[in-house]
Amino acid sequence: MLAKKFLPTRLLVSRFFSSETSKTLKVGDVLRETRVFSSEDVKAYAEVSHDWNPLHFDPESARKAGFENRLVHGMLVSSMFPRLISSHFPGAVYVSQSLHFRSPVYIGNEILGLVQATALRETKDKYIVKFSTKCFKNHSEVVVVDGEATAILPNLEMLHL
Amino acid sequence: MLAKKFLPTRLLVSRFFSSETSKTLKVGDVLRETRVFSSEDVKAYAEVSHDWNPLHFDPESARKAGFENRLVHGMLVSSMFPRLISSHFPGAVYVSQSLHFRSPVYIGNEILGLVQATALRETKDKYIVKFSTKCFKNHSEVVVVDGEATAILPNLEMLHL
Repeated sequence: MLAKKFLPTRLLVSRFFSSETSKTLKVGDVLRETRVFSSEDVKAYAEVSHDWNPLHFDPESARKAGFENRLVHGMLVSSMFPRLISSHFPGAVYVSQSLHFRSPVYIGNEILGLVQATALRETKDKYIVKFSTKCFKNHSEVVVVDGEATAILPNLEMLHL
Repeated sequence: MLAKKFLPTRLLVSRFFSSETSKTLKVGDVLRETRVFSSEDVKAYAEVSHDWNPLHFDPESARKAGFENRLVHGMLVSSMFPRLISSHFPGAVYVSQSLHFRSPVYIGNEILGLVQATALRETKDKYIVKFSTKCFKNHSEVVVVDGEATAILPNLEMLHL
């Protein structure tokens, strides 16, 4: 369901599940990964970012703000995007990222991160690639964060295809 | 020098250095904080984000990509923005953030984060506030990351003015 909306089924089949396709990035290709954020992740992120917003630690504060429970930091969820890009293209340099936080992420939610190449330009010996970036929640079509990223890739050969 | 470009001197004097001004957020107000990212911070961020891009750990990879040394993750530097907003307005809900990574941040660089309210709208019992968000490097006018953020604040009373 989700994937059908995100990209044509043809791409799903050819890029997600086959190891026989080219390992060279093309427009339309999708990188994906799932992750469940734990209470320890939220604490570790707060420790390194110094972001101790009570929404992330105090369920009562979160409920007062209209949420069901305490939240995972949106920027921690969004870290899935550069992680996805750099794990497939080590040495990738991040140029920009836009982020719209559309739905809360709670501890224990399964988050699917999808990064799809939407434009690709060669320049000297590098590649400037635009990506559509989205995270979905719990096998649903609920978008929790989306936006666009631009990165400079040293090459187009994908690791971990 | 830096601050003059960022906002009028009048605001600088009245908002940055006086504790006698109102503690209610107004358009033009600036929140600021400095931070130096350590090697341990970069490792802790990689552990929680799973972003092990060699640019952040291997000086040789970073030099190959045109940098002087290994980099602090851009998303870690950018975490200063929600941290600044939520430390002054506990319970703030992040709606959006755009990020343009303009210059590298190395371990040990002193980073000044500035968040300036640019628009403010009341809705029911909450406030939707737009912020201009910038980080500068080493007491210079070098912007390392900039963009805009929107947050929903439970009230306009600033902590830690």
